Amino acid sequence: MALNGSETQSRPAATPLTLLGLGAMGTALARAWMAAGHPLTVWNRSTARAAALASDGARAADSAAAAVAVNSLVVVCLLDDASVGEVLDDVDLAGKDVVNLTTSTPALARARAAWARERGARYLDGGIMAVPPMIGVPGAGGYAFYSGSPELFEQHRATLTVPAGTTYVGEDDGFAALYDVALLSAMYGMFAGAAHAFALIRSEDIDPAALAPLLADWLNAMSPAVHQTAEQLNSGDYTTGVVSNLGMQAGGVPTFLDTAEQQGVSTELLSPYFALMRRRLAEGSPEEDLTGVVDLLVRPRSAAAA
Amino acid sequence: MALNGSETQSRPAATPLTLLGLGAMGTALARAWMAAGHPLTVWNRSTARAAALASDGARAADSAAAAVAVNSLVVVCLLDDASVGEVLDDVDLAGKDVVNLTTSTPALARARAAWARERGARYLDGGIMAVPPMIGVPGAGGYAFYSGSPELFEQHRATLTVPAGTTYVGEDDGFAALYDVALLSAMYGMFAGAAHAFALIRSEDIDPAALAPLLADWLNAMSPAVHQTAEQLNSGDYTTGVVSNLGMQAGGVPTFLDTAEQQGVSTELLSPYFALMRRRLAEGSPEEDLTGVVDLLVRPRSAAAA
Repeated sequence: MALNGSETQSRPAATPLTLLGLGAMGTALARAWMAAGHPLTVWNRSTARAAALASDGARAADSAAAAVAVNSLVVVCLLDDASVGEVLDDVDLAGKDVVNLTTSTPALARARAAWARERGARYLDGGIMAVPPMIGVPGAGGYAFYSGSPELFEQHRATLTVPAGTTYVGEDDGFAALYDVALLSAMYGMFAGAAHAFALIRSEDIDPAALAPLLADWLNAMSPAVHQTAEQLNSGDYTTGVVSNLGMQAGGVPTFLDTAEQQGVSTELLSPYFALMRRRLAEGSPEEDLTGVVDLLVRPRSAAAA
Repeated sequence: MALNGSETQSRPAATPLTLLGLGAMGTALARAWMAAGHPLTVWNRSTARAAALASDGARAADSAAAAVAVNSLVVVCLLDDASVGEVLDDVDLAGKDVVNLTTSTPALARARAAWARERGARYLDGGIMAVPPMIGVPGAGGYAFYSGSPELFEQHRATLTVPAGTTYVGEDDGFAALYDVALLSAMYGMFAGAAHAFALIRSEDIDPAALAPLLADWLNAMSPAVHQTAEQLNSGDYTTGVVSNLGMQAGGVPTFLDTAEQQGVSTELLSPYFALMRRRLAEGSPEEDLTGVVDLLVRPRSAAAA
């Protein structure tokens, strides 16, 4: 009894907070905070999901303004940035700590941060690197990027860590969105490659479930190549540490295009990358790594301004 | 002494073999077999590399025909299939076990297998999933796919396992090449996605070396999605077990395109995948997973024949 009492006293009370938006992600966040004992006030445009959480102990507010009024920490997880503007347009944000987990672009996140600060709020932008089933599950690997006010992040780090890990990536309000989009973009590239691989075997007597583990293992074995890409981008030297050089890899391109043709598979997902490999080879050196493709993707600032 | 003698007797003599082709991969294979005590006869079009190996104990033959005549097991690792035809066109292959590790397409591998069998050889095709530094390094994760004669594979499995792991994928002579190309195609998709991710941060004060570990971890966390893709392709039901459905992901596409635009990055590597997502959404159900993209890549057989 004494020990229990001592433990209770030494643990600070869980921070109360307000959550706006109860889609699949918002609901998962709500469940995680409630499970950890955080007094939670919720609001959602359609009321059914708020009612379900209310029956489990959350406080369901009648309006976004009413929900925001209850707590100083306000987490926003809506469909998109336009929804954030609509929902909070008439709401008093003075003195509030707004943590915006709504998926957005860097530019929209920066504009939303300025908008919130004009209304007297502190602002932290977040990008969640997880799907709802990973939320509130320690060890599932989910986390969120945060950028913006470092003070706000430090003050609420413990609360923000309840549903998923936290990675603070800087004061630039757009960086959480930028890291988020960068990682998801790379993922879509990987998914595109995997779709092409499955398409190649579609007409053969090969079980996709036999290819899948080989595919996953190979992708995991090759993903560390990004470390060398990063080093080369930093040094500007794309010819150090090269194992399979651009000349050799560009030389192998017909094997990939011909195989797709033989298997009746469109090359539309891979051709653009092969085209950039060949363009870089034409402009650069066959001794390079594939890193030069990155530069070909970036439009020169002067051209963009012209 | 007695124990040593017993050990020597219980270990079968390492199989002698001939290796044609001493590029970076061929040389790595040669070094691995020599290190394991296999009597090795080598031939290469240009003689410098053969001479280097000869000084370390390999037998350098004056011609491909002479090299093939020495051993019944003949491993071929040349630049491409055309080189295999040129090098072996006048060589007596009767009674030989030809293991062709030359990178090729499934159709070329099948044709080369028929060509070799017409000449009285047994034939096994291989596709190496490794770069030369991984060859002969246990635990490096390199391996080779093999397809074709199962008897030849079983007979020489121990020898073939010396430079890298072995994965036999069936009697269809084209399957080793097909698995090889499928995995490498997926890898290029992943590389394309990673290139896009690095391009997105190129104009920002973000260290690529800070992004790289986040990128590698995220790709590794998402690669298991291929297991679900395989299950869905097998069942034909693309709506079971869906976490982020097609409708939601297609809805997020503008965030990726707009972010690229804001960062001055071309969308050419990702747009084709997004276009297929949208096409599938227009034709199918928003409740599906992304698996339907695979079907859009495969040209209908009837259309191909028409």
